[in-house]
Amino acid sequence: MILELINGPDDIKKFSKQELTILSQEIRDFLIEKISTTGGHLASNLGVVELTMAIYLAFNLPKDKIVWDVGHQSYTHKILSGRRTEFDELRQYGGISGFPKRKESPCDAFDTGHSSTSISAGLGLAQARDVLGEDHFVVSVIGDGSLTGGMAYEALNNAAQMKKNFVIILNDNNMSISENVGGMSTYLNSIRTGNGYLDLKKHVTNTLSRIPVIGEQLIDKISRTKNGIKQLLIPGMLFENMGITYLGPVDGHNVKALTRALKEAKNLDHTVLVHVITKKGKGYAPAEKYPSKFHGVEPFDILTGRPKNEKKNLSYTDVFSKTICRLAKDDKKIVAVTAAMPDGTGLKRFSSLYPDRFFDVGIAEEHAVTSAAGMAAGGLKPVVAVYSSFLQRGFDQVLHDVCIQNLPVVFAVDRAGLVGSDGETHQGIFDLSFLSAIPNMSIFAPKNDWELAKGLEFAFSLDSPIAVRYPRGTAYQGLEDFKAPIEYGKGEIIYQEKEIALLAVGSMVSTGEHVRQKLKAEGWNCTLANGRFIKPFDKKLIDDLASRHWLIVTMEENVLQGGFGCQINGYIHEHYPDVKILNIALPDAYVEHGNVSLLRKGLGIDSDSIIWRMKKEYLDMERQNREWKDKMN
Amino acid sequence: MILELINGPDDIKKFSKQELTILSQEIRDFLIEKISTTGGHLASNLGVVELTMAIYLAFNLPKDKIVWDVGHQSYTHKILSGRRTEFDELRQYGGISGFPKRKESPCDAFDTGHSSTSISAGLGLAQARDVLGEDHFVVSVIGDGSLTGGMAYEALNNAAQMKKNFVIILNDNNMSISENVGGMSTYLNSIRTGNGYLDLKKHVTNTLSRIPVIGEQLIDKISRTKNGIKQLLIPGMLFENMGITYLGPVDGHNVKALTRALKEAKNLDHTVLVHVITKKGKGYAPAEKYPSKFHGVEPFDILTGRPKNEKKNLSYTDVFSKTICRLAKDDKKIVAVTAAMPDGTGLKRFSSLYPDRFFDVGIAEEHAVTSAAGMAAGGLKPVVAVYSSFLQRGFDQVLHDVCIQNLPVVFAVDRAGLVGSDGETHQGIFDLSFLSAIPNMSIFAPKNDWELAKGLEFAFSLDSPIAVRYPRGTAYQGLEDFKAPIEYGKGEIIYQEKEIALLAVGSMVSTGEHVRQKLKAEGWNCTLANGRFIKPFDKKLIDDLASRHWLIVTMEENVLQGGFGCQINGYIHEHYPDVKILNIALPDAYVEHGNVSLLRKGLGIDSDSIIWRMKKEYLDMERQNREWKDKMN
Repeated sequence: MILELINGPDDIKKFSKQELTILSQEIRDFLIEKISTTGGHLASNLGVVELTMAIYLAFNLPKDKIVWDVGHQSYTHKILSGRRTEFDELRQYGGISGFPKRKESPCDAFDTGHSSTSISAGLGLAQARDVLGEDHFVVSVIGDGSLTGGMAYEALNNAAQMKKNFVIILNDNNMSISENVGGMSTYLNSIRTGNGYLDLKKHVTNTLSRIPVIGEQLIDKISRTKNGIKQLLIPGMLFENMGITYLGPVDGHNVKALTRALKEAKNLDHTVLVHVITKKGKGYAPAEKYPSKFHGVEPFDILTGRPKNEKKNLSYTDVFSKTICRLAKDDKKIVAVTAAMPDGTGLKRFSSLYPDRFFDVGIAEEHAVTSAAGMAAGGLKPVVAVYSSFLQRGFDQVLHDVCIQNLPVVFAVDRAGLVGSDGETHQGIFDLSFLSAIPNMSIFAPKNDWELAKGLEFAFSLDSPIAVRYPRGTAYQGLEDFKAPIEYGKGEIIYQEKEIALLAVGSMVSTGEHVRQKLKAEGWNCTLANGRFIKPFDKKLIDDLASRHWLIVTMEENVLQGGFGCQINGYIHEHYPDVKILNIALPDAYVEHGNVSLLRKGLGIDSDSIIWRMKKEYLDMERQNREWKDKMN
Repeated sequence: MILELINGPDDIKKFSKQELTILSQEIRDFLIEKISTTGGHLASNLGVVELTMAIYLAFNLPKDKIVWDVGHQSYTHKILSGRRTEFDELRQYGGISGFPKRKESPCDAFDTGHSSTSISAGLGLAQARDVLGEDHFVVSVIGDGSLTGGMAYEALNNAAQMKKNFVIILNDNNMSISENVGGMSTYLNSIRTGNGYLDLKKHVTNTLSRIPVIGEQLIDKISRTKNGIKQLLIPGMLFENMGITYLGPVDGHNVKALTRALKEAKNLDHTVLVHVITKKGKGYAPAEKYPSKFHGVEPFDILTGRPKNEKKNLSYTDVFSKTICRLAKDDKKIVAVTAAMPDGTGLKRFSSLYPDRFFDVGIAEEHAVTSAAGMAAGGLKPVVAVYSSFLQRGFDQVLHDVCIQNLPVVFAVDRAGLVGSDGETHQGIFDLSFLSAIPNMSIFAPKNDWELAKGLEFAFSLDSPIAVRYPRGTAYQGLEDFKAPIEYGKGEIIYQEKEIALLAVGSMVSTGEHVRQKLKAEGWNCTLANGRFIKPFDKKLIDDLASRHWLIVTMEENVLQGGFGCQINGYIHEHYPDVKILNIALPDAYVEHGNVSLLRKGLGIDSDSIIWRMKKEYLDMERQNREWKDKMN
């Protein structure tokens, strides 16, 4: 295998043209084989094999800096920079990340994970180079999907002012995770298909002569003229108009053409965008056919493309999906907004059933939130379905556009809590904190599948903003007997005991139930309470718990700071100074990738760790005290 | 006065052409007179007098919905919709807001305040109209400055898909608050000046024939061809390429031309952008000459344009400005980033002294933060100078791009705390909460001018992200004798007493000092401690205070939830259950516009209110207890 000769960034440069062709096939085979075993991002990586090779041929890593937007397409880059042998541990606890990480390799110039950051980061690196008088190239690789994100445009707008070389590679596969949408996508598509060229000369003679000169601002004439000229397309003029040199389109699976284009790009003394056309999933038939399905995959059978472990149980996303379709059937005012994730958020079915009430706005969380605010101001009941870590992008819009006006927007916050193998950038462990700080916002977290459905129902009945927060993966189906109706700001007591109260929210209610059962076996009887509302939290419930128990254990899958327990502490201290509190929450740190169970254990939020902490900090001493008292009596 | 005949949105429609000309002059005079008395936004409002009139002539308010981007240019709109008589109370406590507010008038379709939201909100309103089968127009008015914000582009991208009418008015005055920057600005400028037209026909014959057909992707040939064709400019093709019909440019001070263009725009069955050229400050010479200075003004003398109350004392912004220039002199790695606010943030002088190390990225907080992260990764020491409420826009970027990689970016967070007359959208009262939740972030707040300078010095010595947070307005110069060196995560004790401890951060240290002095006069001796670091907070200091005092009063100018006191509560409850805590912070609510002193009083964070609460909740009872004890002994 040629592939085995690659142990560092320069090794690819030794190969002949023929060997490069073999190499690209070997990389594809390697990616398919490894990802079929570990799971990971497949289609995006298959699409950029040749592009990555060309980057390594045209540039010198790690001296030259490459920034990968999102970074889920960086696998070939990881291979070429010398991390091939680490792919068995890809995205596993302790193994290499599925995203670029500066701590992994000097070839990883900047950590990414969320969309549309690469031009900003690359521009910063280029500006640093120029201020420090260094001499190297900076390249930002961005997908056409990521180009729908506003900050990519902010960066393009700024990059137009660069006085030295800065290379942007537009990896255009006509896709976000799902199909790409919007005006920019249509524009790129017209370049890709070359429709603009066909009648070029005819149009030129017909229309250009009729363009009015400035001064005669005859609107209708301009308008008519332009309708005639619309098909006249000079490739990349949109970018050229902004002051960025456009090169392309280039065939993204032709290493020679790519390398030549990139070398050309190096010669310019300002910002240049190289437009590369790639095919997502290239070289693996199932992924070419279903690129969205093969965007991120669990382990699969290479021959059939089918997942090795068939999904059996409903996920929370499935519950959301079913519920929103059901509710929308009866309430025509319900509309749904997604930022380019109809599949991931479970809105696909809604979009088929109610296409006129479904809005995929592109990778544009800011716009998603504010347009939903506009819809609510216009009399609709929008739900914005979004992953917790991506809602961070819309923080100001939630605060400024939704909540100041107290508009009834429902946020269906998926992937809240630990998400596992995507790691640091995707853990949804901050939403309770950043949402709790926002006035007028309510936050609900269901304990199980039933409660998610009921919570959503409740959310649409509320005339103010509310976030319904639920984790990734299988919906918990336990505690099905406890179906107290949802009331605003009210929790529920599931098991009533005395002395010790476990007060959990969301996913931690099931953990709380495990803690309760295990402690019961050891002779400790615990009350189990389901907080349900993080904001406003249920003061009456706290009064109830605090007046009957000497220890309250709060539990949440969120950082402690600003979260659920944090709010409770002040209230308890003020009113029940003698009641002990133990806050179970995530530490003030980012959480790396890995299996969620392992992560929970490592972070001390699984039932055994919680019991261990309860014993160490409170129960052991309490037991000793009691034994001592018994002895004395 | 014709102006007095206007009491509702339809009244303008009765006027003749001649009367409209008089009206525009009367509105200008009115604006200048009123704003010279109350202060407010001047230049932007003078720029859109005719545009607003034309909107009222072409559309039917409140049935048709107008969304004003940022909204500081909505004064003429407020006049024409019938709020003329309320201008004496403009931006005063209890008076009308300087921004659109739905609760003020049915003509205010959507509340704005931050930049670049209007297309998103308007699109949402238009989509609601279409889902509900209503029949009215929606118009979003956006400035060319706001068009540098990413979410405006996200919305444009999405608006291209509209199947019914949606009108965007681009109010192009070639300015943000300061001069506009970036590729889009250059592009609009080329339309405005019409340079593209001059050699149109020559270019056409020379170059169009040389455009290669698709298939022969000869990069260098395309590139050469395009260099030749670059001057060929068809007005608005950038927008047309994205799928949005472009009309213009239109003279923004010609009511007839404007009205005609807007009526034309109403006829289209998709999204249309009307490009209007206005002059910021139009009609008032000092504002035309210095539009940036006259963007937002304090009361001024109409004749000279000079502020009525000359500024005497240094503001915190001034201290930042001086300090950053001083530090940058010795450390060539220090660079500064602003999102279109070189004046407001105090970076103007830096930009003159170190133009190569100064980056104005446009109204683009997301890109500002991530490009700074790129600069830090590239070896620089960037400071991002930004208002607290605008940093909300960069929340995900701080969390995801700066802090995961633990990059040494300094955030100079100005206008933190209450800002006064700009109201709800501009109060900087959430940053302690949203920044505290972010791992690796440190937060420092200075008690006075000296401490801001020292804090900044310290910040640049730290090799990790840090926010230095300071309020709007005059820098506090008291407590100048207390100059304990800044140490990481350490506060300082200013006055050491026992029994009661006042533990304040930032602006509240001076308030704490007033509380201390007033209580002293009443026989209560209070310790005054300056927290300095909100994150990490000084545990040793808390140990110290908690072990010697029975009451700790935390004080911050931030919402309670997730802020300084909130963190302290859990620590004290765990370790010092008997110590009482009183959290002085802002309530869980938005804060309207008004004089800061009045606001502080209304919100209970001025010294008298704090003393009142301390007495009511703790001191009165304590005094009674003591008297009772004395009596018994």
